Amino acid sequence: MSRQVESARRIDAFDVVAFDADDTLWRSEDSFAHAEQRFTELVSPYVPRGVDLDAALRATEKADLSISGYGVKAFTLSMVRAAIDVTEGAVPSSVVGELVDLGRSMLTEPVHLLPHVPEVLAAVSPHTRVALITKGDLVHQTRKVTTSGIEHHFADIEIVLEKDPDTYARVLRRLDVAPERFCMIGNSVRSDVLPVMAIGGHAVHVPYHITWEMERVDHHDEDVIELASIADVPMWLGITEF
Amino acid sequence: MSRQVESARRIDAFDVVAFDADDTLWRSEDSFAHAEQRFTELVSPYVPRGVDLDAALRATEKADLSISGYGVKAFTLSMVRAAIDVTEGAVPSSVVGELVDLGRSMLTEPVHLLPHVPEVLAAVSPHTRVALITKGDLVHQTRKVTTSGIEHHFADIEIVLEKDPDTYARVLRRLDVAPERFCMIGNSVRSDVLPVMAIGGHAVHVPYHITWEMERVDHHDEDVIELASIADVPMWLGITEF
Repeated sequence: MSRQVESARRIDAFDVVAFDADDTLWRSEDSFAHAEQRFTELVSPYVPRGVDLDAALRATEKADLSISGYGVKAFTLSMVRAAIDVTEGAVPSSVVGELVDLGRSMLTEPVHLLPHVPEVLAAVSPHTRVALITKGDLVHQTRKVTTSGIEHHFADIEIVLEKDPDTYARVLRRLDVAPERFCMIGNSVRSDVLPVMAIGGHAVHVPYHITWEMERVDHHDEDVIELASIADVPMWLGITEF
Repeated sequence: MSRQVESARRIDAFDVVAFDADDTLWRSEDSFAHAEQRFTELVSPYVPRGVDLDAALRATEKADLSISGYGVKAFTLSMVRAAIDVTEGAVPSSVVGELVDLGRSMLTEPVHLLPHVPEVLAAVSPHTRVALITKGDLVHQTRKVTTSGIEHHFADIEIVLEKDPDTYARVLRRLDVAPERFCMIGNSVRSDVLPVMAIGGHAVHVPYHITWEMERVDHHDEDVIELASIADVPMWLGITEF
């Protein structure tokens, strides 16, 4: 009887439960959104009439992605490049300096955990091996993890270049876990859900109120499990003592 | 008798032989040195008399290291910051744009393997598990590895934030190898040799003709094994068929 109750708990079906970090465990997009707003304020006085500054920044970011990757340093370099290109060099270098300082402050700002995150990790981690799988800049993500106050919950921390099926397959081999015994939880359908399902793993979508344009997916045919809040994760996993 | 010959081969004492990448397998410092020279040419016309531009760049790099880490993106941001700070904003943003382009070209330039590297890896990799352990930027190091033409020799590729004893201990746990069965080969006494010896591992120093200032060590008490060229590695390992 007790055994039957045990096996009804979904968490028993997983050897590893992994969480995404940015906008799943802590705020990230808000900081980029704020920086984009400052970028517009700082650069728009030097922009020729009729030029769409936001569109120029997005186009530069997109062009830089394959070269610079994800993260604040790449974003800062894209802001600098976009500001200089779109103003044809008319932006003063002092303004460029402010953009660089903006990036620096993003790299050093304290981590803002999302609501319920510490309690959820404390509830889940005694029951299974908990991992963190995030993409982005090695130094910045490491700084965030080590200053987050939640690092001790994670048995494994993987900072990856791209969240595609190949990368998940490699990470799962490294963690020595079969896809059907693995569950990923994150705010991005594109990065946290679809590639995991593609290799036969499980995934849960916990949306955040802002989704970066490049993380959006237009349509897909998968039945995605969506929870309104990370606070719903323990119950979904069948952990009753949360 | 045959057994005695076998055990005389030093390679049999190691379960993993790991190589550093930058300036061990491929050129790296040359590219930074060239960029620093261009930086000086581009920025010096705007620098107040008596200011040491090189010293300013080095100081900015050092100040940025803990925030931005190693790698070309961090270096590019340091160049931009130094150029603006030292000229008190007098440097035109078009020149700043050239610095950013310089960084971009470093991120995309082809990998220049050092002499003998493919042959050495081909000689060593059939005899033991070969790993690559490098620090730096995730996206740039990954690009270099995947375009190097030598990726297939490596059973494991670890891109780390810092090469200190703690990091090596973590990597060795991950590779499931005991320190006394591990040998690291690299051009930096500070990053590739001393921290590995500190955890009881083996290390071989293969100097490169330029050493980045921050990689220099003033003095240490260890007996460091030094080979003149990476071409000497197979013989040192006791691989006779090289």
